[in-house]
Amino acid sequence: MFTLYYAPHTCALASHIALEQAGAVYEAVRLDFRAEAQRAPAYLAINPKGRVPALVTPRGVLTETPAILAFIAQSFPEARLAPLDDPFDFARMQAFNSYLCSTVHVAHAHRVRGYRWADDPAAIEEMKRKAPRVLADCFDLIERTMIAGPWVLGEAISVCDAYLYTVTGWLAGARIETARYPKIADHHGRMALEPAVRRVLAAEFPAAPRD
Amino acid sequence: MFTLYYAPHTCALASHIALEQAGAVYEAVRLDFRAEAQRAPAYLAINPKGRVPALVTPRGVLTETPAILAFIAQSFPEARLAPLDDPFDFARMQAFNSYLCSTVHVAHAHRVRGYRWADDPAAIEEMKRKAPRVLADCFDLIERTMIAGPWVLGEAISVCDAYLYTVTGWLAGARIETARYPKIADHHGRMALEPAVRRVLAAEFPAAPRD
Repeated sequence: MFTLYYAPHTCALASHIALEQAGAVYEAVRLDFRAEAQRAPAYLAINPKGRVPALVTPRGVLTETPAILAFIAQSFPEARLAPLDDPFDFARMQAFNSYLCSTVHVAHAHRVRGYRWADDPAAIEEMKRKAPRVLADCFDLIERTMIAGPWVLGEAISVCDAYLYTVTGWLAGARIETARYPKIADHHGRMALEPAVRRVLAAEFPAAPRD
Repeated sequence: MFTLYYAPHTCALASHIALEQAGAVYEAVRLDFRAEAQRAPAYLAINPKGRVPALVTPRGVLTETPAILAFIAQSFPEARLAPLDDPFDFARMQAFNSYLCSTVHVAHAHRVRGYRWADDPAAIEEMKRKAPRVLADCFDLIERTMIAGPWVLGEAISVCDAYLYTVTGWLAGARIETARYPKIADHHGRMALEPAVRRVLAAEFPAAPRD
């Protein structure tokens, strides 16, 4: 039994989807970021970083999306969510997830959480101004070099797909048309039809209209 | 046979140390960042990201430090550089590496490469001003919550130690005394005595005085 701490519109969506794809038994606990629940002592006792996702397991708490995604894949090998038997293919998966975590997510954070790296409002505004271009450059690189197709790693769906789906969802906020990236747009559309994704979206956004 | 592309004073040091600890057969190729060799077409053909490290393997090119570190550990299991047989312990290792990659490295980059996220020189200057505080907060969290001791993961040295050694080396540039963090300072001193670390430093800094 796992417990996933998440907040809507965050990268925790990737871990949430992966748990659902894996067929894991888990509880998803929503944190209210508007109430700063991620900085409350009760949550900091679980995750001192004050961020999501955090995955509580019987062995302890795990954080960091790439670590959690690989852990889910390794814990549920029958779900075949990662190339577990080949160190090179596994490393390709990890490189993709690491790029999303350390470069794409960081580019996005400069639009919405610039206060992490500057106090001066003018500097925060300048980061916000540039962020869409930085984010667009990241997606250009993903489109050109990182999608084997039809899924990120090739014929088999993997945890990379849940993660790409998650960050692609942030393009709209930066007023970047997903259609600029044909492979990524196609990927996003196919992922949205995956039953696990639909179940997770229904859980994270219960009030949203469903087609 | 592997080829590691690196530049001195970058995070590629972690992969370089791990290769040496693993007893891998490899060639280390230095890129001249002052000549912008990382943006030359010849290198972009190897790594379109224009960054280091890049590890050329017989199967293809790998990038991203956490991916390369786990790959080295998995490729040389006899070197015991990671807890390979336990998904939870492996995930703890990965969470540490992911934090260094996506938060610590990013904090450092705001001091030296703010142009990635802003064009306005005043904003870049403001990031540079705040960066040491952000970096110090990261090291506070590492010191308080992430070092099992004596090594990062406990009794056994792992690729996490090469990575922590690498980023700790960036504190001086931000005028942060490593001694503020007793566990990390002790770790840094012990790592500096490791034969693999000494060999790698001699290779990356051939003109530096040796004790």
